[in-house]
Amino acid sequence: MEHLKATYLIETPLPVDDAAAVLAGEQSSGTFVSVPGETAELKQRYAARVESVTPLEDVDSPSLPGCRAGDGPYHHAQVTIAWPAHNFGPNLPTLLSTVGGNLYELTQLSGVKLLDLELPESFADHFRGPAHGVGGSRRATGVEGRPLIGTIIKPSVGLTPEDTAAMVKTLAEAGIDFVKDDELMANPPHSPFDKRVDAVMRVVNDHADRTGKRVMVTFNISDERDAMHRHYDKVVESGNTAAMMSLNSVGLVGAKDICDRGELVIHGHRNGWGMFNRCPTLGMGFAAYQKLWRLAGVDQLHVNGIANKFWEPDDSVVASIESCLAPMAGMTPLLPVVSSGQWGGQAFETYRRTQTVDLLYMAGGGIMAHPSGPAAGVRSLQQAWQAAIDGLTLEQAAAQHEEFRQSVEKFGRK
Amino acid sequence: MEHLKATYLIETPLPVDDAAAVLAGEQSSGTFVSVPGETAELKQRYAARVESVTPLEDVDSPSLPGCRAGDGPYHHAQVTIAWPAHNFGPNLPTLLSTVGGNLYELTQLSGVKLLDLELPESFADHFRGPAHGVGGSRRATGVEGRPLIGTIIKPSVGLTPEDTAAMVKTLAEAGIDFVKDDELMANPPHSPFDKRVDAVMRVVNDHADRTGKRVMVTFNISDERDAMHRHYDKVVESGNTAAMMSLNSVGLVGAKDICDRGELVIHGHRNGWGMFNRCPTLGMGFAAYQKLWRLAGVDQLHVNGIANKFWEPDDSVVASIESCLAPMAGMTPLLPVVSSGQWGGQAFETYRRTQTVDLLYMAGGGIMAHPSGPAAGVRSLQQAWQAAIDGLTLEQAAAQHEEFRQSVEKFGRK
Repeated sequence: MEHLKATYLIETPLPVDDAAAVLAGEQSSGTFVSVPGETAELKQRYAARVESVTPLEDVDSPSLPGCRAGDGPYHHAQVTIAWPAHNFGPNLPTLLSTVGGNLYELTQLSGVKLLDLELPESFADHFRGPAHGVGGSRRATGVEGRPLIGTIIKPSVGLTPEDTAAMVKTLAEAGIDFVKDDELMANPPHSPFDKRVDAVMRVVNDHADRTGKRVMVTFNISDERDAMHRHYDKVVESGNTAAMMSLNSVGLVGAKDICDRGELVIHGHRNGWGMFNRCPTLGMGFAAYQKLWRLAGVDQLHVNGIANKFWEPDDSVVASIESCLAPMAGMTPLLPVVSSGQWGGQAFETYRRTQTVDLLYMAGGGIMAHPSGPAAGVRSLQQAWQAAIDGLTLEQAAAQHEEFRQSVEKFGRK
Repeated sequence: MEHLKATYLIETPLPVDDAAAVLAGEQSSGTFVSVPGETAELKQRYAARVESVTPLEDVDSPSLPGCRAGDGPYHHAQVTIAWPAHNFGPNLPTLLSTVGGNLYELTQLSGVKLLDLELPESFADHFRGPAHGVGGSRRATGVEGRPLIGTIIKPSVGLTPEDTAAMVKTLAEAGIDFVKDDELMANPPHSPFDKRVDAVMRVVNDHADRTGKRVMVTFNISDERDAMHRHYDKVVESGNTAAMMSLNSVGLVGAKDICDRGELVIHGHRNGWGMFNRCPTLGMGFAAYQKLWRLAGVDQLHVNGIANKFWEPDDSVVASIESCLAPMAGMTPLLPVVSSGQWGGQAFETYRRTQTVDLLYMAGGGIMAHPSGPAAGVRSLQQAWQAAIDGLTLEQAAAQHEEFRQSVEKFGRK
């Protein structure tokens, strides 16, 4: 019998083995006592079982309200639960309801966070995973041996299609590999999707014709279902290679429906992710999260970056990059999208800690606000990454490369 | 200019006005400084503005990690932000990214929870809202003047289609109005969706032919997009009136795509909801949550119940019921689904506090484990509700009604 396994951080005043058993019961039988129809055989074939329990530290007060299982101390433990895969079959939303459903409501727990998943191997028969991932993103942009260098159009809202196209022209001429819409920009009256695609792709296609370099632009197709497909069609017709979705806002079913088409590289924006992850004892960890989206077929996924402008610590960013690139049931790795407060300066620490160039490395101000202009900004990022790969320090790289030196002077103070 | 408004609880060591301005900036311009293309006119037309700030209490330590804006005290405040509606248009996922996106990542905040939304009136031109809601659920079941009485098939997984049909037969004969699948039961190998519908609907249709009473059964159609539509078709063909989705697992786009069809009453299961709401200073409150799903067109939504078996306090349950039934941009109210540890005993407090019978009132053990059998269980719930509506106390009702008296004896101890 094949199993799905899920690992949680739990917090409970009960003996941790007992609390783990409650979680397994709630998410399989629901109730295996005193209901007609319950038999020992049913229980044997369908009940979730506790695979392992690793006690961690105790805390004095409960992290979350509503625990009614006693006073402290509250024990932390890492627990792994295994479900017979035939309980749900290859049904992505029901898988999520199984590992991340009513368990968050349990009064026996004062904390519960889904940390990771181990998928049945047979899922590879049903789920293709990313149609493009790292390799497809490289093929579409022609970038090898270094991270893709990308940027985002700002301000987030308000630009006309022509404004956006003018910015993309500047960026394409600067040598950028990738440009994305903001998650707040989808199909608003001031920049209708089709008009934005037309205006921007005139620039992108013209640039590709003249130089042979095709910039990947991820227009934000997030919308209702039929509209997303119309946007997708428009992007395919335009000659572009990719599109973007706000994953949490679209949801698993809408996202997989789009990813199943497989023509475009799908850039997964995780805005709203802090809601799931910022509380240390509630929600979901990134290792589990990226597996759900990889099953749905997303190709690129945001991970923040080293010394980012948001709240996430570097260790968490590094772990996220590693989890995107780790094997999963034979499926292609996700391309980690490094962003938030990035410029060339973080290339050194990013490479030292991850030892990979399979990244989409996004910088905003680091490109557009470079003292010698956007082309120098892109060059400064390429220089930083090549230096990091070659084992140079930031200081050595700044001594060798004028554009990178200028970026250190401008952005390196903070 | 029309606006969308969102109200948040925030926690911050900064002056609360400053923190509110950061939130508004992040979720509109993204950056209105030092980027070419930013003009005063753009800012005027597209920037979100802070509508109001109500300071609340201070706390000594931060609720969430990653705040880098100073030491305590950490100020709580309720803030309302207004966005020009033309920033996103009637685009549901982008609306969610606007009010619930990257703001959860801000280092200026040590807590942020989306509490409520106020929608532009023009949304009614684009969003139908629930096609059925309270009125449609009543018409489909023929129940007036009291809550619909419902139950759930248990154990959650493992039963064959024939086992499930046999339970539904017992329940139909007991006089139940509504039966639902568990969220863990969708289309597994041991109970394929179509076979379960066939077996159960033979019972339901036969019962309707004989008695004139049509039980509403919400088969769990949660699945990938095309499979959900196949399941929906199957349910329509079977003569049934409703279907169920696990909303958080399916997502907004997949759910609206199904609700747009409008033939079936859609029962919205909120499993996973604790992930969004259990932390008092992170995520989303129910008032905002139910509006998103009402926009998507869901007809019935879970709210827990008074003295539920989960963590949620009664005040929160009462507020959730009220928000489902409150007006929203001219759209039909959602039918609140009261469940979790319910039997007739909670009818009195539920009615006293909500003064409504527009509920789907779900009991499991309270029906199936009644000492005189399921028919007595259903009668005990009807008796309890009629007594509550008539202003009787629990004790008076128990003195008048034998079935309810037995249920008090069995379930009233806890």
